[in-house]
Amino acid sequence: MIRSELVIVGGSAGGLQTAICAQRHQQLKDIIVIRPEKKILVPCGIPYIYGTLGNVEKDIMPDKLLGDAKLKNGKVASIDRKAKTVALEDGEIIGYNKLVLATGASPVEPPIPGADKKNVWFVRKVFDYLEQLASAIDNAKHIVVIGGGFIGVEFADECHKRGPEVTIVELLDHCLQLICPEELCVRLEDALRDRGVKIATSNAVKSIGGVDKVEFVELENGGKIECDMVIIGIGVKPNTKLAEEAGLEIGPTRGIKVDEFQRTTDHNIFAVGDCAEKYSFFNSAPVPLRLAAIATREGKIAAANLYSPQWRNVGTLGVFSSIVGETAISAAGLTDAQAAKIGYHDIVVGEAEAASKHPGTMPGATLMRVRLIFARKSGKLLGGCACCAMTAGEFSNILAACIVNGMTMEQIALFPMGTHPWLTASPLAYQLTDAASNALHKAKGMVA
Amino acid sequence: MIRSELVIVGGSAGGLQTAICAQRHQQLKDIIVIRPEKKILVPCGIPYIYGTLGNVEKDIMPDKLLGDAKLKNGKVASIDRKAKTVALEDGEIIGYNKLVLATGASPVEPPIPGADKKNVWFVRKVFDYLEQLASAIDNAKHIVVIGGGFIGVEFADECHKRGPEVTIVELLDHCLQLICPEELCVRLEDALRDRGVKIATSNAVKSIGGVDKVEFVELENGGKIECDMVIIGIGVKPNTKLAEEAGLEIGPTRGIKVDEFQRTTDHNIFAVGDCAEKYSFFNSAPVPLRLAAIATREGKIAAANLYSPQWRNVGTLGVFSSIVGETAISAAGLTDAQAAKIGYHDIVVGEAEAASKHPGTMPGATLMRVRLIFARKSGKLLGGCACCAMTAGEFSNILAACIVNGMTMEQIALFPMGTHPWLTASPLAYQLTDAASNALHKAKGMVA
Repeated sequence: MIRSELVIVGGSAGGLQTAICAQRHQQLKDIIVIRPEKKILVPCGIPYIYGTLGNVEKDIMPDKLLGDAKLKNGKVASIDRKAKTVALEDGEIIGYNKLVLATGASPVEPPIPGADKKNVWFVRKVFDYLEQLASAIDNAKHIVVIGGGFIGVEFADECHKRGPEVTIVELLDHCLQLICPEELCVRLEDALRDRGVKIATSNAVKSIGGVDKVEFVELENGGKIECDMVIIGIGVKPNTKLAEEAGLEIGPTRGIKVDEFQRTTDHNIFAVGDCAEKYSFFNSAPVPLRLAAIATREGKIAAANLYSPQWRNVGTLGVFSSIVGETAISAAGLTDAQAAKIGYHDIVVGEAEAASKHPGTMPGATLMRVRLIFARKSGKLLGGCACCAMTAGEFSNILAACIVNGMTMEQIALFPMGTHPWLTASPLAYQLTDAASNALHKAKGMVA
Repeated sequence: MIRSELVIVGGSAGGLQTAICAQRHQQLKDIIVIRPEKKILVPCGIPYIYGTLGNVEKDIMPDKLLGDAKLKNGKVASIDRKAKTVALEDGEIIGYNKLVLATGASPVEPPIPGADKKNVWFVRKVFDYLEQLASAIDNAKHIVVIGGGFIGVEFADECHKRGPEVTIVELLDHCLQLICPEELCVRLEDALRDRGVKIATSNAVKSIGGVDKVEFVELENGGKIECDMVIIGIGVKPNTKLAEEAGLEIGPTRGIKVDEFQRTTDHNIFAVGDCAEKYSFFNSAPVPLRLAAIATREGKIAAANLYSPQWRNVGTLGVFSSIVGETAISAAGLTDAQAAKIGYHDIVVGEAEAASKHPGTMPGATLMRVRLIFARKSGKLLGGCACCAMTAGEFSNILAACIVNGMTMEQIALFPMGTHPWLTASPLAYQLTDAASNALHKAKGMVA
């Protein structure tokens, strides 16, 4: 029997980052990463396989990132916590001193009648499956994408680039409604429509019809969309079977329960990424946020804490960006609805809009809009969003920096930003500081 | 005699922002802005007039930004602090209750023999002058740009786009050396050379030769560059004559001395922008940082403090970005040399490089490199820079947010960044967090 100092179950973002950081910070060399997949996909890149990248091979995370960690192909069937071993499905037993579970999440499969028909697809992080999906898209004439979150929106846009007609069906009033305020949702929907994607919001799917293969989608409102393919992207559920069967506790959002050091209820076993429970940065309550960037952060924390508590996870913050054509959006922290739900009933909204470059006559300048929400009492930033083209990703990180540092509307209004004609708004109209200034004005009428 | 509640002398970034914020936050309506210029230029946009924008008219700040503030064209000749009036050159007297000096800065005119010859130009923020400069560039065959700071580099690139051959002559070993570490300077120099701009560094200009008009530039090392036009951009000096003659104190970097509320030694008179002294965020020592974004920040502070101290200027931080072709750079805070100069002798450098998009096969992905410097003792971020294309401007603001909040290498290593395939590096290789992690590893060998 092999016995390894550190065994990591799962080789995607969270597991891989744990392996990297255990080497980087703990100088561990005796590491085994066990995963069923021959090749690991870049998770956020999956939608882009179908339009932008062109094939699955271009969306691979190279195994050389594992460094000195050994790779074991296989599926772990069970954990024996007493013997400190894991058993693989083929019967092999591998011992561990420390174990990290990074088992990820699987697509939610809703109980829609007909979801078992041929040509109904999910977004699975499996190479061969995603290759077959590419062929299916190539042969489709009209695809219905069920779910208008980031995955649904990005899939719809990319599939449409490949040829077929695409319609998104979303239960809520708007795509991305759980993440962005209405105005940003509308902008992204407009961008999708401009590019030829159809959108049916406020619509639930009643059934998927067809003799054997998909022929149509029937909506709750009685409508019917003729189509020959369906992709379902309505969320994920943590893969916790292994942990549950080993007697580890599971949390309220169905992730493996972890403490602020990423330790499960067995302190020799850690959990990171989509399979692990998350706790809100704002109030430490469980939150169902599952993103690759969150997984890697947890991987770093787990790696640091293997032998003694070093790094505390101060809580999970949602930080997002996406882009459709030239329309990109950023969001970080709480939406108005999320803020209200956790007790921030009195918020102040600050808004600003200005050209993305300056002067506004610079080539490629577009209007960039920022919206911030602050707690009135403390003045602290709770969340923000923006519509801002290619800077959206880094802009979401500015918002994150302001939030995690507890910056107030006054501090942000006086933020010492740098500006440049090609790269940002004018210093007279920098949207972040101006939105904070706008909030300040609304909150206090004038400077306190 | 008119008497106005608030008189602002100077209508560029600092003066204009003061006028805007005095209305926004103080609800003041009785404001007069006095300026000699008919039209106000967007200061950072000036280099872009010559290549990207095409004409001076496209680089104008619209007067509608003044809102209800009245505009008075004229030049203030003197201040009578006792009578609380200013006298214009045409003899008109205008009374004030509060006075804000935003008189800006003027190009440094070095005592180079021949600098008075025809076709030697400076970067003056004057509409007609800049229009004449455009014609001069159109008629030039070879322009020598003296000074390889941001202004020199941007001017050289833009002039070159307009047709003539361009050579930058820089005293130091590299262009931008005072702002960026060597490796970034080299990248930008390479980008300039790729675009056909010539660069002569480690070279001082001994004289400008020619019978009447510029014919050549003679270097200290004996070299000679044939040329028919020279643009000098080696820095600015604050315009403080008015303040000095009124008996206001002047600081060590020759700006008008102000306290942390932007008040001059007369508390009814404020100074903002290039004419005002700046104090370092790090140690409150005077620093010669003069940028439009700093001016606007000071304008906000002055406007808030007109009647009672409200907002404290916690110090000035240098936050820069620029771009040549597809090569953009960001920098914020201290360089290694600046850090050493103010006593940070023991610093830790963290570096990281990764594709700007993920997977690296995404179209347009380039290598983005980040370099951070931390104080070893406190672990706090002192400065950072990056080479990062179109996100450079906002990336410099992430660095600024980390610095002003006193974030440590541990905190940045665990920063809850958001990532997206089109918009940022991979979460496994996000350069900011990885550079902090690299510093942490160097500082402590492993996690503390």
